[in-house]
Amino acid sequence: MDKIKVAVVGYGNIGKYVVEALETAPDFEIAGIVRRNAANVPDEIKRYKVSERLSELPDIQVAILCTPTRSVKQYATEALSLGINTVDSFDIHTQTVELHRTLDQIARQHKAVAIMSAGWDPGTDSVVRTLLEACAPKGLTYTNFGPGMSMGHTVAVKAIEGVKAALSMTIPTGTGIHRRMVYIELQEGYHFHEVAQKIKNDPYFTNDETHVLQVENVDNLLDMGHGVHLTRKGVSGKTQNQLFEFNMQINNPALTAQIMVSSARASMRQQPGCYTLIEIPVIDMLYGNREELISHLV
Amino acid sequence: MDKIKVAVVGYGNIGKYVVEALETAPDFEIAGIVRRNAANVPDEIKRYKVSERLSELPDIQVAILCTPTRSVKQYATEALSLGINTVDSFDIHTQTVELHRTLDQIARQHKAVAIMSAGWDPGTDSVVRTLLEACAPKGLTYTNFGPGMSMGHTVAVKAIEGVKAALSMTIPTGTGIHRRMVYIELQEGYHFHEVAQKIKNDPYFTNDETHVLQVENVDNLLDMGHGVHLTRKGVSGKTQNQLFEFNMQINNPALTAQIMVSSARASMRQQPGCYTLIEIPVIDMLYGNREELISHLV
Repeated sequence: MDKIKVAVVGYGNIGKYVVEALETAPDFEIAGIVRRNAANVPDEIKRYKVSERLSELPDIQVAILCTPTRSVKQYATEALSLGINTVDSFDIHTQTVELHRTLDQIARQHKAVAIMSAGWDPGTDSVVRTLLEACAPKGLTYTNFGPGMSMGHTVAVKAIEGVKAALSMTIPTGTGIHRRMVYIELQEGYHFHEVAQKIKNDPYFTNDETHVLQVENVDNLLDMGHGVHLTRKGVSGKTQNQLFEFNMQINNPALTAQIMVSSARASMRQQPGCYTLIEIPVIDMLYGNREELISHLV
Repeated sequence: MDKIKVAVVGYGNIGKYVVEALETAPDFEIAGIVRRNAANVPDEIKRYKVSERLSELPDIQVAILCTPTRSVKQYATEALSLGINTVDSFDIHTQTVELHRTLDQIARQHKAVAIMSAGWDPGTDSVVRTLLEACAPKGLTYTNFGPGMSMGHTVAVKAIEGVKAALSMTIPTGTGIHRRMVYIELQEGYHFHEVAQKIKNDPYFTNDETHVLQVENVDNLLDMGHGVHLTRKGVSGKTQNQLFEFNMQINNPALTAQIMVSSARASMRQQPGCYTLIEIPVIDMLYGNREELISHLV
């Protein structure tokens, strides 16, 4: 079997777990890891080629983008332009359609496939939400997150000037409404209240009740467990009160990474273009003989 | 907008709910209903054309097969051979792959689309199971049903000689193991123990602990509510103890019917061939503008 040659772009939290997920998958070969500083190579990836540029790695078929969400467009554009498929976990809801259009055009132009927003939310939760609308077209879905650390929000806080270390916790208060509890260490020379206000003004936080707290040591608070409680109550045909519920309690970066790896596999099975997870057949995410999968799962 | 011209084949429990679901859908037109006895037309469908043969109905694009599962192959073959898409809720697990192959060949030959096993299990539960394997490739999934009436099992009991009326209840005993509680009214001239043994020997029941009870009036016991409690505990990459859960409490034929209608819509968006729900993008099941759906659901 020819293994799928994959590059891991970015080696932070998600990148580390992506490497682990690739190492357990029977059909992938890690052909390289892209880091800003290729001289900085942690022990666990010393066996792999580490490069500062994707274009320097040979014969890559898929690039898994483990970069901050705001850099996704740049890195995806670079990879797709090289004819390399991409997978990202882009999570800025209001920009999803715009990025979809942009990547779709570039991907088609270069006969490549982009799978975007391929984490758990957006991502697999999106598939569940879509499926439940197919089951009960009328009704209300509520997606409740946490309590747990939001990777995207934490990265957004860290990007703000004056923040030395950060943790953004998502606290569900019901019916899809969340409180954000942000814990920060302050850099010297910055005023807490000014930094806190900048955080609250960030697009990631403007729509939620946000509390910013200054702490001595963020690291002591870190736990990457997270959860989802997703409900739909709706109407199938003319029948009311159809009740659905999806729950999970998971290690957040480990799940995101696994879904990105499963999506990288799916990217090999799509026509050129850009796709969110709701636009691809779920079977394409799995390794194995198709008829055996159907026999086992349907 | 051109509406999708659909025929409802069979007007029993599921057929009635399919008509309701079609009446609430903005993009379907009921072009006819197929019954064995077209002279027997209940009031609520008097406004529709009722025929004894699908081939007598003009311009049908999709036939929703609301027939017993064991007649699916016959009716699907007839419809596909006329170039008409089909949707069925075939639920004999051990014959899924074989039917898939058969219908795939006929569908391709006649440039039509068959969507098979498109109920909630097999069907939407299959999508959830597949999605959870993409999230955690190693681990165990348990699908627990009920307590609730199994339509397929009840129909199977009714088909057995000597059974006047029947109800088969599915009782979850955990870890995907179920007890079958079968309530029957006996036809005159038959021996209860012989009929009970025939039920226990039926392929629908041989693998489960099955109790058959004789009652005076099955109708007094009927409630078409049902439920699912589906769990997966597994490994994402190298991270253990990832926990997932999907639950529903629903009116069984209403949900089956709605999923079949959503699948009929999806059939219009696939290339010729046969598909189970895990093989089609979930977004294809929904009515509406694609970018708006992505914006709303991803």
